[in-house]
Amino acid sequence: MTLLDALRSAVGDAHVLTDADLRASYETDWTGRFSGTALAVVRPASTAEVAAVVRACAAAGQALVVQGGNTGLVGGSVPAGGEVVLSLTRLTSLGAVDVPAAQVTVDAGATLASVQEHARAAGLDFGVDLAARESATVGGLTATNAGGIRVLRYGSMRAQVMGAEAVLADGSVVSRLGGLAKDNTGYDLVSLLCGSEGTLGVITRLRLRLVPRLRSRAVALLALPDTAAAVQILPELRERLPDLSAAELFLAPGLALVRSYAGLPAPFPVAHPAYLVLECAGRADPTDALVEAVAEVDGLLDATVATDAAGQRALWAYREQHTEAISAAGVPVKLDVSVPVGRLPELVERLPAVIEDACAGARPVLFGHVNEGNLHVNVLDAGERAEDVSDAVLRLVADLGGSISSEHGVGRAKVPWLGLSRSGNEIAAMRAIKTALDPAGLLNPGVLLP
Amino acid sequence: MTLLDALRSAVGDAHVLTDADLRASYETDWTGRFSGTALAVVRPASTAEVAAVVRACAAAGQALVVQGGNTGLVGGSVPAGGEVVLSLTRLTSLGAVDVPAAQVTVDAGATLASVQEHARAAGLDFGVDLAARESATVGGLTATNAGGIRVLRYGSMRAQVMGAEAVLADGSVVSRLGGLAKDNTGYDLVSLLCGSEGTLGVITRLRLRLVPRLRSRAVALLALPDTAAAVQILPELRERLPDLSAAELFLAPGLALVRSYAGLPAPFPVAHPAYLVLECAGRADPTDALVEAVAEVDGLLDATVATDAAGQRALWAYREQHTEAISAAGVPVKLDVSVPVGRLPELVERLPAVIEDACAGARPVLFGHVNEGNLHVNVLDAGERAEDVSDAVLRLVADLGGSISSEHGVGRAKVPWLGLSRSGNEIAAMRAIKTALDPAGLLNPGVLLP
Repeated sequence: MTLLDALRSAVGDAHVLTDADLRASYETDWTGRFSGTALAVVRPASTAEVAAVVRACAAAGQALVVQGGNTGLVGGSVPAGGEVVLSLTRLTSLGAVDVPAAQVTVDAGATLASVQEHARAAGLDFGVDLAARESATVGGLTATNAGGIRVLRYGSMRAQVMGAEAVLADGSVVSRLGGLAKDNTGYDLVSLLCGSEGTLGVITRLRLRLVPRLRSRAVALLALPDTAAAVQILPELRERLPDLSAAELFLAPGLALVRSYAGLPAPFPVAHPAYLVLECAGRADPTDALVEAVAEVDGLLDATVATDAAGQRALWAYREQHTEAISAAGVPVKLDVSVPVGRLPELVERLPAVIEDACAGARPVLFGHVNEGNLHVNVLDAGERAEDVSDAVLRLVADLGGSISSEHGVGRAKVPWLGLSRSGNEIAAMRAIKTALDPAGLLNPGVLLP
Repeated sequence: MTLLDALRSAVGDAHVLTDADLRASYETDWTGRFSGTALAVVRPASTAEVAAVVRACAAAGQALVVQGGNTGLVGGSVPAGGEVVLSLTRLTSLGAVDVPAAQVTVDAGATLASVQEHARAAGLDFGVDLAARESATVGGLTATNAGGIRVLRYGSMRAQVMGAEAVLADGSVVSRLGGLAKDNTGYDLVSLLCGSEGTLGVITRLRLRLVPRLRSRAVALLALPDTAAAVQILPELRERLPDLSAAELFLAPGLALVRSYAGLPAPFPVAHPAYLVLECAGRADPTDALVEAVAEVDGLLDATVATDAAGQRALWAYREQHTEAISAAGVPVKLDVSVPVGRLPELVERLPAVIEDACAGARPVLFGHVNEGNLHVNVLDAGERAEDVSDAVLRLVADLGGSISSEHGVGRAKVPWLGLSRSGNEIAAMRAIKTALDPAGLLNPGVLLP
């Protein structure tokens, strides 16, 4: 039996795609930057089918690339050339919400939006949210330990994952879906799979924790003299506002770009160097607490609090329109980095000169999640110097003790720079674990590890 | 150079203990159940010295047992016979509290109490608390992923650990102490070390997250018809009380034992089957919210809320005196298990008959942390049937989808039952990781893995 026959036998003829037209959407990531030809795209519908696919590939020595919603930004889920793409988008079952435990078991291919809707129908919510929610799958979010705008309150994806079922490289299945809040019986394999970018196993099901559904929101926009002021006031705001859910930074150049792109009015009578969007979400209306906290915090140049949904959307728009406004202005170099929060001001201050050195005339647009020291670095007009700009930015981040990938992962895109964030001893330890669990290197070769 | 010479050269003559009298306190755990002779006890004072010790042992093929405060309950940190005990109690430095980040870097041998005091002096607090705080080290708490009474609010030890420095089995050092809130650059080695019970590396330093210091407390004692009622009302209480920090269950037989041991008055005019201690801790006084929530929850048989510190201590005493009262009544079989929270009532209901079957006349005393489905199963008068009682209880727990070790770890004590909580595939994966990182099996042999 050939490999293709074995794959057809595992998932049914209709779900082994070999025609170039049918394969195409699985072979290129949505940034368009990464693509490669797949031997076939295989679409199993259950853990057992995934295991059968992996066993067939293992027997044939055939490399696999695991793909969820294909919304990644670092080329981690598209083939480099010749791999089988294992697409999990047919694994979409949602188990009944376990309200007393505030947990749910879902298939890895379920989209974030479908899990959110499912949780909300039971009076709960899911702790992670991000813009790709309609396409991104919870399996992919777990494999990349995705973040988003609510990390301040609920943590990243790893903090939501109470258990997982996965197929290892030899086709064996490990399953921990009991949702035990405490279980100290050996190595935390589930946590190891989170952020492993498909290189250690194929996540097929997840046990997720849910959070209370908070219907009352309040949003403020603060004007500040600089990033240092944002970092300085955040501990006091966190202390005063237990309902604080987001603290998002953007700067004057980004605001100007957004206003020009989207035709938005100025938020304040005069321009200011830095801005912070705050959102509180609670069981009770958090508006009064937010107004009071904003009134009492020192060092603001100006501030406004939105009291209705339309006003809240208008304030969020200044931050949320950044991505579109940047894309409309050109093809940006997009980097996602973090530093210890105390060094965020230095990063923001030094970046323009470092970028100018790497590419004269390039335009940085910066925004990010202050609480985690996470900055999204977008650079316009870098042209052919994109690689130089990336290198210069990532080296500065490493000098400041930071991470070259805060949310997006390493994928294929950042493999050359992994040594800036992880020591040789750490990479050796990671390599040892990879070799132990996938000795033939069949899962996502070329992703994450050099 | 002999191994002992190499060890003396690494840490200084005074810190290689070979005299039996000096070794003794390191060779037996505090339960008295586990002991063994050590070749020597070595007391390094820095990561570099730990690395030198591990390298010397690796060169000599000498097995090591890693020991913190020696407060473990499963024999995981005392020698079986012939190992070098690597004691970390001289690694006690506490770095300056990073208030904006709410983090601190400390040595692994620092006691929990010293870290708590250090955090409180800076206006913050540490998220884990438990009775052994004066002796237990934060390194040991991390290696065993310790829990305690605040897990409901802040999670177990793993949730506090933002970074670690560790010496691997070959003497190489991995160090991630930057305290980045988000860092997606590969496998989470720090999380893998949490709960690995010293079998994958020697944790020498930790970057810990800190939490707000909450000075206002309120405590309630609820009387309930059964454990099912406790499980049923908890989601509503959690929803109504964002400040909820503890929800501790005990039962009529335990209360009777405690009252008789400690001479305490009855909490209510008549006895009830089950009791729940609730504690709220907040920036503002949570008493009114607790009183209101207790008044509105359905199904209580009786309830009382303590409004001053003395009254709060009096209510907590009913729960906290369980351990001493049980020990005073005999030598108990002590098991620490958890099940999915929805199955906790069934576990509590079925345990007495299962224990009676295993050992007629044995007396179970049960208490636990409701939110995590975590039950501390103490069995008095089991005599020579202790092993049978353990076996019967752990098998019931496994039948209910539970964990044979909720907080304490596997150590040497529970190795024979590991297969009840972890599948063959999982144990094979754990074994592969162990072999990858410690091919000669030098770190804590006999602990955790069969």
